[in-house]
Amino acid sequence: MTLDLHDDVVSLTRALCDIPSVSGAEAALADAVEAALRKLGHLEVLRDGDAVVARTNLGRDRRIVLAGHLDTVPIKDNLPTWTTGEGDAELLYGRGTCDMKAGLATQLRIAATVTEPRHDLTLVCYDNEEVASVKNGLGRLVRNHPEWLAGDFAILGEPSNAGVEGGCQGTMRVRITLAGKASHAARAWAGRNAIHLAAPVLAILAAYEPRRVTVDGLEYREGLNAVNIQGGIAGNVIPDACVVDINHRFAPDRSVDDAYAHLCEVFAGYDLEIRDQAPGARPGLDLPAAAEFVAVVGREPAPKFGWTDVARFAELGIPAVNYAPGDPLLAHTDDEHVPTAQIRECERVLRDWLS
Amino acid sequence: MTLDLHDDVVSLTRALCDIPSVSGAEAALADAVEAALRKLGHLEVLRDGDAVVARTNLGRDRRIVLAGHLDTVPIKDNLPTWTTGEGDAELLYGRGTCDMKAGLATQLRIAATVTEPRHDLTLVCYDNEEVASVKNGLGRLVRNHPEWLAGDFAILGEPSNAGVEGGCQGTMRVRITLAGKASHAARAWAGRNAIHLAAPVLAILAAYEPRRVTVDGLEYREGLNAVNIQGGIAGNVIPDACVVDINHRFAPDRSVDDAYAHLCEVFAGYDLEIRDQAPGARPGLDLPAAAEFVAVVGREPAPKFGWTDVARFAELGIPAVNYAPGDPLLAHTDDEHVPTAQIRECERVLRDWLS
Repeated sequence: MTLDLHDDVVSLTRALCDIPSVSGAEAALADAVEAALRKLGHLEVLRDGDAVVARTNLGRDRRIVLAGHLDTVPIKDNLPTWTTGEGDAELLYGRGTCDMKAGLATQLRIAATVTEPRHDLTLVCYDNEEVASVKNGLGRLVRNHPEWLAGDFAILGEPSNAGVEGGCQGTMRVRITLAGKASHAARAWAGRNAIHLAAPVLAILAAYEPRRVTVDGLEYREGLNAVNIQGGIAGNVIPDACVVDINHRFAPDRSVDDAYAHLCEVFAGYDLEIRDQAPGARPGLDLPAAAEFVAVVGREPAPKFGWTDVARFAELGIPAVNYAPGDPLLAHTDDEHVPTAQIRECERVLRDWLS
Repeated sequence: MTLDLHDDVVSLTRALCDIPSVSGAEAALADAVEAALRKLGHLEVLRDGDAVVARTNLGRDRRIVLAGHLDTVPIKDNLPTWTTGEGDAELLYGRGTCDMKAGLATQLRIAATVTEPRHDLTLVCYDNEEVASVKNGLGRLVRNHPEWLAGDFAILGEPSNAGVEGGCQGTMRVRITLAGKASHAARAWAGRNAIHLAAPVLAILAAYEPRRVTVDGLEYREGLNAVNIQGGIAGNVIPDACVVDINHRFAPDRSVDDAYAHLCEVFAGYDLEIRDQAPGARPGLDLPAAAEFVAVVGREPAPKFGWTDVARFAELGIPAVNYAPGDPLLAHTDDEHVPTAQIRECERVLRDWLS
């Protein structure tokens, strides 16, 4: 599997999507990206696990980081890619088209073809963004090679409808384990059904009204959702355990500790085991580098609802925004797609700004 | 792995348990049972899949069927077997001790050692009782070799505390699939959480009050329980499906159709997919053969709450009861066990009656 970075940005998007790269299985795509970047000659190419970094070293005053993840959520009969419509109405469908190989394609095109950028460029393509935060490839780079990530401003290629989306919400995953007592299903009164014990937990989730809150001028929308439930031993046994995994998305006015305290209140009386957590990032669009890029894009900035690695750059002290083609509402859906006109627009904006 | 049918009945129970035979993996135990029976000489031995049948052909006026299943529910760190206490207080622990290798041991001992029984005997040891009814080894024998099951009265070795338990409850398993819409967990409002849609289903189950009803003088207790729940795609995806498997145990005054109609009423508005079903059997203890055996046992008969293959014998027109050592309340529990004194008592009762 080879990639041609001199190909048209839409063709490149398709080629990136058609190499499956579900979290944990990004090696083939990382190999193809690394090989394509090494062919170019004007970039220093580095590798850590399935993360690939490429950068110019031109001694410019400022360094811009373009970052995107290589992985996708699991495929649901939505590969290889296909298109509908033509011209400005053309849509590219398939796993990864929206989240986020279209964004990755624009960044790869800029790294490959803007050989004399007005700011030094660092391209960061990394693995395991769609799974537990501890596995995140960008987080691993922060630990192993923080110097590879140095920069003055970062653009993360998460779908943002070709507008700038500032900040990001935090995320926390907790587990509630309901403990019952097994018995033969014909004598249920001798046991205690752990699945039935989950009824109040699901009722709390179904009734929960998430908060909407304005932070630094952008309105965020929170969420509280069961993302997994498992219970049962055999068809004729009263189950002794039922496990519910709950994901909370919280606005960047709350810390991870605030969010946990809120969950303890919502699920009073239940033990909450934290499985995963990541802080949000305030939008910070008043920072000079962010403001400059917002002006170049020329669209009204919006809040980022999803957690993104903008938060990791914020923790490194690097201002960062989300900017890429694709509607974030379509991320992770079975029919995710991206307007090909947005892919071309994003490539053009980045090229105009960096050339 | 060899079995010695001339061994003490408690040692034989342990030997049977220590050959694991979770449903679908009974071959090793079936082989050992077949080999041990073939050594005896006074029995005709037959085999179908992992079911083993052995019988006398003495031309007696009446034929008694002793039947028991070879399989167990999954092992939960409860093998090999162990004992606590001594003498009359001795308990034998481990998977299968109660359900139902102690009963099987008493039947194997009678078949092996009562070489001139006053009624002809047919021993039926079969597979796959603890899983979906369509896999049941006794059901397969009914289809493949109904003549092997011929008899005037059947004793099924399901645990009954060494008393006669008459009839059995019916069982039905239905599946409710909640259909949602996937989306990114950070934008839950774009999806529909299928796990949350299960909240009312679990609430119905948790609030359900099962019926208690007297049939032919014995009081039955029904049950309605989730036995499995599964939902979730990934930690950051709103799940598009949640599947709940529900087991209903119903008293023998209701047919399978009655039971299904009741479930449709309880879960009005939900589609119920029938996964498994088996009718109950009225106790029928007024039948002469059943009454004779009840008198020999000398204990007050009780209702059988669990579904048992008594119902299959009832369908063949053969009166049948449950009779074996072990508390049925302990069946399928992690700490299932059986008083060894009950094992010896059951062997003695059967021997006194059949010698």
